[in-house]
Amino acid sequence: MNGAHAVARTLLSCGVEVCFANPGTSELHFVAALDDEPALRAVACLFEGVATGAADGYGRMTGRPAATLLHLGPGLGNGLANLHNARRAATPVVNLVGDHATFHKKYDAPLESDVDALARTVSGRVRRCEDAATVGDEVAEAVAAATGAPGQVVTVVLPADVSWSDGARPARPVAPPQAAAVPEPTIATMAAALRDGEPAALLLGGPATREPALGAAGRIAAATGARLLCETFPARLERGAGLPSVERLGYLAEGAIAQLEGVRHLVLAGARAPVAFFAHPGLPGALTPDGCRIHTLATAGDDLVQALGDLADRVAPDASPVLRAAVRPTPPTGPLTAETAAAAIGALLPERAIVVDEANTSGLGLSEATAGAPRHDWLTLTGGAIGQGLPLAAGAAIACPDRPVLCLEADGSAMYTVSALWTHAREGLDITTVIFANGSYAVLDMEFQRLGGAAGGPAQRDLTDLTRPGLDFVALARGMGVPASRATTAEEFTDRLREAFGEPGPHLVEAVVPALF
Amino acid sequence: MNGAHAVARTLLSCGVEVCFANPGTSELHFVAALDDEPALRAVACLFEGVATGAADGYGRMTGRPAATLLHLGPGLGNGLANLHNARRAATPVVNLVGDHATFHKKYDAPLESDVDALARTVSGRVRRCEDAATVGDEVAEAVAAATGAPGQVVTVVLPADVSWSDGARPARPVAPPQAAAVPEPTIATMAAALRDGEPAALLLGGPATREPALGAAGRIAAATGARLLCETFPARLERGAGLPSVERLGYLAEGAIAQLEGVRHLVLAGARAPVAFFAHPGLPGALTPDGCRIHTLATAGDDLVQALGDLADRVAPDASPVLRAAVRPTPPTGPLTAETAAAAIGALLPERAIVVDEANTSGLGLSEATAGAPRHDWLTLTGGAIGQGLPLAAGAAIACPDRPVLCLEADGSAMYTVSALWTHAREGLDITTVIFANGSYAVLDMEFQRLGGAAGGPAQRDLTDLTRPGLDFVALARGMGVPASRATTAEEFTDRLREAFGEPGPHLVEAVVPALF
Repeated sequence: MNGAHAVARTLLSCGVEVCFANPGTSELHFVAALDDEPALRAVACLFEGVATGAADGYGRMTGRPAATLLHLGPGLGNGLANLHNARRAATPVVNLVGDHATFHKKYDAPLESDVDALARTVSGRVRRCEDAATVGDEVAEAVAAATGAPGQVVTVVLPADVSWSDGARPARPVAPPQAAAVPEPTIATMAAALRDGEPAALLLGGPATREPALGAAGRIAAATGARLLCETFPARLERGAGLPSVERLGYLAEGAIAQLEGVRHLVLAGARAPVAFFAHPGLPGALTPDGCRIHTLATAGDDLVQALGDLADRVAPDASPVLRAAVRPTPPTGPLTAETAAAAIGALLPERAIVVDEANTSGLGLSEATAGAPRHDWLTLTGGAIGQGLPLAAGAAIACPDRPVLCLEADGSAMYTVSALWTHAREGLDITTVIFANGSYAVLDMEFQRLGGAAGGPAQRDLTDLTRPGLDFVALARGMGVPASRATTAEEFTDRLREAFGEPGPHLVEAVVPALF
Repeated sequence: MNGAHAVARTLLSCGVEVCFANPGTSELHFVAALDDEPALRAVACLFEGVATGAADGYGRMTGRPAATLLHLGPGLGNGLANLHNARRAATPVVNLVGDHATFHKKYDAPLESDVDALARTVSGRVRRCEDAATVGDEVAEAVAAATGAPGQVVTVVLPADVSWSDGARPARPVAPPQAAAVPEPTIATMAAALRDGEPAALLLGGPATREPALGAAGRIAAATGARLLCETFPARLERGAGLPSVERLGYLAEGAIAQLEGVRHLVLAGARAPVAFFAHPGLPGALTPDGCRIHTLATAGDDLVQALGDLADRVAPDASPVLRAAVRPTPPTGPLTAETAAAAIGALLPERAIVVDEANTSGLGLSEATAGAPRHDWLTLTGGAIGQGLPLAAGAAIACPDRPVLCLEADGSAMYTVSALWTHAREGLDITTVIFANGSYAVLDMEFQRLGGAAGGPAQRDLTDLTRPGLDFVALARGMGVPASRATTAEEFTDRLREAFGEPGPHLVEAVVPALF
């Protein structure tokens, strides 16, 4: 058996069932191996950033890694931005990066580059396979390392001759690293802080933004009066009617500072102490108020879910969480704006939807408008590298074929990885994409205003404007096989959204909205 | 003066006149500085790979660096693939990569990553500015380092507070490193090899594929009988009627081996000894024939142009090069194929065109069909990282606004950086893009055939097929503001191409051709 076959068989035996692929010549033997392993589903992507973003979406929804198949350093480079987001989301991902044959690297052929250095910038573990005999073991170890608590991006570099050489064998699954139990004294310390009588908040992150940890956090809040906050960009936030409400920390430092004002005990449950997304002249980088004590319930690698349950059993043995009531906005009428679009989404969001949110400034009203919608998952831009939404939606839809996916996408961000729409069409994925077409990089205009109008001249206008020429997302989507329409009023948008939700498969609605900044 | 203003003024004083930009929040002060320096032209790109590919095209055509403006590690990551190509082309490029403020990095905010490690994989020099006082000097040194012989990619990391802090001053230009003169004994050794009487070849690369070095090489060939070869993927090959003909080494090892058969002296003039693009089971990696002696006229950093002139003066004082006659194919009729498309291009190629070639397998007939066309420049995919063509064309068009650009682009490759079409439209660039729409990654199908049909099953078909759904490049181009049409016969293609050449501004012609493999 050659190395490529051993890799494919090992992936399958370790529970990896999907490979988001953009192969080149050095990966052909692995592609040939896939022909013999039909259970390992190969999903074609037209750009590596689509493959890596899809793997992130898949991993967030399943807790298990997908594989990516990437072509040497440039292929990995094209995938880095969404691997950066996956790293910040602690998503399990196994990258297979093909490389030149071991004996060919000395020639410094045109595609030669430092694959390992690139991989280390986004991976918790990087391994270069040196011979076919050990490649199965390397892959089994990689899957385990990716899957352990917390999840992480792992990269396996596969030289072409390792793939084509015989003498390989598939490996059995390796047990992933177990989450460490949080010791009882730590639970006691948290309980004491929460019962101290001073204003307290739980800051949730990682698995704490999902059930069952969310319910435990809700009980703690109900019994102690602690507020429930979560990190600004959670990997996967379960929310909606019937779940405890969690308030996301604001993106701008001044907003988060206002939210945290008066908090005297901040209990970190899977989140880190809050910091500003960007430094800003005159604003602090660390956002915890002066005089507020920070307590860490669990860190990465700890059993956070168990710890939150233990803490709830201690401070709230009989409490029930306050659950969000089922309330939807009225379908909107009149001009289409970010606000009326949010109302339409809140009014129509289907049961068990997966919402992928890269709406950026156009999404400011979404959280409130959807808070009482049927229970859903909200996936956010964890690492700030735009171009995530369309790929992430593809991966989430493949992970959960029985759930509708709503991809909320800013026009500027959409263009980074727009070819993901082709994968939506090719795989027939049940994704409704809304493009918020405000014709600008509005977040930059907002930041210019925050700087007191530092610019405002031709360069600023030129570098934030997307209207010369305008982007026609209906044409772009149709050009890649996705049915598409444009809405310019709230009624039109509501109708288009209802139609898209009512029909399986991918759809795109271009929502023409004014920029908020 | 703040750091950002000092950077902008220094770039201008050092002759950098264009900045291909995709900024984010950490780059806003630099954008504001551009408002005060209108001579520094900011070109908006919707994706960083467009910015870096455009900088490569600009640098290849001017010999001077453009700046890029990129947003932290993920922005640089998105630009890496085309920087890899620029590195292989020895193109001068100055990347400005914004980063978090120096005092903010300790917080490991969501966009934090190892920018320097990423930059080192593609840059000959990486500098992180630590304060405003020295930023002008850093940029002047960077421009010099990028421009010296050979050109290279240089990256300057600009923390946000270095940009916004006062106390900076612009720096004067720094003299770039001078090319080293090739010593007379080396010239004498080359001359002796060429006069040895055994079959000899000059292998040209770098500046030797352009005038005036090309003319010197032609004289040497005329006087000594040496063949004129050039590297497989030259950065910029001047060719056409009235210039010496140069034979490019083949992409496949077996082809290059056949071309080199019988050569006993191989004189390297700006090229390295030929190696296989990829290793292949059973084929050698080093392609120089057994018994052939390799002689190096000049290496990177040497004055190659002077050396070729000196060598020509020594071995060919009175020789004239054999020049290519002006001959064009007849405009083709009948089915549209890669071959008839090439004939149409050869028949119509305008005077002084710049041809950007990422046609891949569909381009196999182009070289012959255009060999006798009016003199033109041919820019190729130097580093093998596909997604280069559309951006490279943008940069070449901005570098040479009085010359028509013909961008020959494979359908699969086009999708990596397709948003470059928006920049074509926004800047009104005189670029005619031909998409060779064969509906497949045909190069991979070719490689599968070379491997003896190692695959052929569903995974291979699924991962090389681009027809489910088909890509409608007419819709895609129009969606980004580029007038577009489709051709399905040779006559249609000829007509569409003639129309596009006859009208200024960007056009796209989708040429529907069968795959060659």
